[in-house]
Amino acid sequence: MRAEIVAVGTELLLGQIANTNAQFLSQKLAELGIHVYFHTVVGDNYERLTQAIELAASRSDAVIFTGGLGPTQDDLTKEAVADYVGRRLVTDELALSRIQAFFVKRGIPMTENNRKQALVIEGSTVLNNDHGMAPGMGLTALDKTFVLLPGPPSEMRPMTENYLMPFLASLQPEKQVFHSRVLCFFGIGESALEDKLSDLIQQQTNPTIAPYAKEFEVTCRITARAASGVLAESLIAPVEAAIRQRVGEFIYAVGETSLHEVLIAELRKRQETIACAESCTGGSIASLLTSVPGSSEAFRGGVVCYSNETKRDLLGVPARVLDHDGAVSEAAARYLAENVRQKIGTTYGVSVTGVAGPGTVEGKPVGLVYIGLAAEGMPTVVKELQLAGQRRAIVGRAAKYAMFYTLQRLKER
Amino acid sequence: MRAEIVAVGTELLLGQIANTNAQFLSQKLAELGIHVYFHTVVGDNYERLTQAIELAASRSDAVIFTGGLGPTQDDLTKEAVADYVGRRLVTDELALSRIQAFFVKRGIPMTENNRKQALVIEGSTVLNNDHGMAPGMGLTALDKTFVLLPGPPSEMRPMTENYLMPFLASLQPEKQVFHSRVLCFFGIGESALEDKLSDLIQQQTNPTIAPYAKEFEVTCRITARAASGVLAESLIAPVEAAIRQRVGEFIYAVGETSLHEVLIAELRKRQETIACAESCTGGSIASLLTSVPGSSEAFRGGVVCYSNETKRDLLGVPARVLDHDGAVSEAAARYLAENVRQKIGTTYGVSVTGVAGPGTVEGKPVGLVYIGLAAEGMPTVVKELQLAGQRRAIVGRAAKYAMFYTLQRLKER
Repeated sequence: MRAEIVAVGTELLLGQIANTNAQFLSQKLAELGIHVYFHTVVGDNYERLTQAIELAASRSDAVIFTGGLGPTQDDLTKEAVADYVGRRLVTDELALSRIQAFFVKRGIPMTENNRKQALVIEGSTVLNNDHGMAPGMGLTALDKTFVLLPGPPSEMRPMTENYLMPFLASLQPEKQVFHSRVLCFFGIGESALEDKLSDLIQQQTNPTIAPYAKEFEVTCRITARAASGVLAESLIAPVEAAIRQRVGEFIYAVGETSLHEVLIAELRKRQETIACAESCTGGSIASLLTSVPGSSEAFRGGVVCYSNETKRDLLGVPARVLDHDGAVSEAAARYLAENVRQKIGTTYGVSVTGVAGPGTVEGKPVGLVYIGLAAEGMPTVVKELQLAGQRRAIVGRAAKYAMFYTLQRLKER
Repeated sequence: MRAEIVAVGTELLLGQIANTNAQFLSQKLAELGIHVYFHTVVGDNYERLTQAIELAASRSDAVIFTGGLGPTQDDLTKEAVADYVGRRLVTDELALSRIQAFFVKRGIPMTENNRKQALVIEGSTVLNNDHGMAPGMGLTALDKTFVLLPGPPSEMRPMTENYLMPFLASLQPEKQVFHSRVLCFFGIGESALEDKLSDLIQQQTNPTIAPYAKEFEVTCRITARAASGVLAESLIAPVEAAIRQRVGEFIYAVGETSLHEVLIAELRKRQETIACAESCTGGSIASLLTSVPGSSEAFRGGVVCYSNETKRDLLGVPARVLDHDGAVSEAAARYLAENVRQKIGTTYGVSVTGVAGPGTVEGKPVGLVYIGLAAEGMPTVVKELQLAGQRRAIVGRAAKYAMFYTLQRLKER
């Protein structure tokens, strides 16, 4: 099946927002084995939108629209597609009652133009909007499949996951289900991972293997289609095993997650706690850990010791260490990790001190980083790293390495 | 002039990256008064690319391509456009010498396919690539303008700013220059700003006024075109004055900047220092401030006091305050700000304590935030806020408010 994604909205053509919907949908369609040949963006203009519909329908089997389902006069997608396929717009009673309930809940009167949002193209499969008002819809007409989705990603994404994916799967010639497994990597770049798996990626069509770069991490999604979930899983298992055999040491989790979420979850499971002393990462580790809801059970606090005085006065790094070894040193990292753990009274203490750049510090090179790991009842260890990249990348990677090493240490304990 | 942006690259159709180039170029073209009617994304496939070129040339005056200028067999943009306009590809000697110099500098041998990157369409204006190898180009052929830019944003963006903008300006019927001024807002949302300026935005065509949302901030770009820089500036001045009259209280800076950059710059200018005590923001303020190169001159350190024990033991919030008023209180914010300033020995101490959610704390509602501001020789003040949104937004906004208030306080001192 060849698909095309048509995003409707003048705000995209003015550059006010990026077309992240097309990226998201492309990933989802790839998982279903549907090939996307074009993305198009067109403004809120009936003639040009109709042109885009005609063109897309002439060259693709499925056309997925995002945007233009709202209540205002600018929102034209339903009208233009209905006109193109020669069908009427009819009120969907369920969607209307959901819209009415929304207004009742907020205690504001519903205006007439909001009724327009409950209109769907006759004969459509309605895709519920659990996070907004305008429903989505899918239909087959003129031998093509048309899908209309709302523009806001917060509405479009869950609608796609929960309603569009099953709708598209149901169009496949034989009944198939799609199962995915995501492997989370740290310590290997996306291109290095792709390189190590390139033959597998190219040979495999079911399951497919797709690496994605995240913020200083990499994930790899294995997606299988089969007649049943059990069969799909049985296709995934050997591929996962083959990947693990090659690059298993870089896998830290399975599922859509991140190092900070995994670390907080592991600590909570063990009823253990952590504190951190951050010099060059400047609060990034604390900020990532506290971004996880419920993190206060495990993360007790931290010190951002950005000056030598704060290292000495708040965290007891001896003046002779600062003078002799320097703030960026194995010895300083050790004191910081041990003392922050003791001062805050946690199971683990992690410290980071290094040179984020752009300038060198104490004659030490940009990218040199020491990570100290103190833990109750275990000897303190310090790791030395030489990281590449600019300030932002060095800080980001150093913070991730600190969490990755802590996770390893926690599993050894 | 009607323009269309054509991004070339299968990685876009697979959803591996978002088409942020189209967003950036749309903004830039809008500044020049050029209307963008379509964005298209097409894969690395000669037939479909040629189709896209024909279509774009049939409906637009200018077609801007991004991507497909690299050295591999997948990179087809130059070839396809050259074939369409019926011109040859010729080696650009300057581009070739720059590519050769790149390899000499790295000490690696240059492979034959890298010569391909120095090929340009005959008769083009070459757009230098100051951040990579493949040059860009602009040409007029078949009564249309074609522009080819490299795909990587780190190369494409500076090329656009430095070489494409003057090239496009030179095509305008009369010689014109473009000047922009960016106003930075905090404490007002993008839609509220747009609403307050809507008549100005709609009436003004020269200068144009364009608001953009940034991470919990808003900017507004005023762009004027005129025969000279002085004339352009004279068009901008009254528009800026009109904007300031309506929403001046929310403007904190002029130029492409952010609250943390402005705060660090102001502190350095005054040779003053800052420390922060963060509860609900969990290190976000420290992390933002330390993201600015040179911040160590002004930012000395901070404490992330995520538990009541750390508030009490590290920052001396009395137990009776924690028991009686609670950790989320005016009194706690006051102690935190004053004590972090004293302990770290800085000019300013700023504290944030609040309820980031999802759950309530001490029976206090999600979004309630206290910001404490202590300063040498000034009475401490505490601001109370009730912020909307989810955990991430509350943390992000609270951190920005803390910096915004500190900036105000610093100017009062």
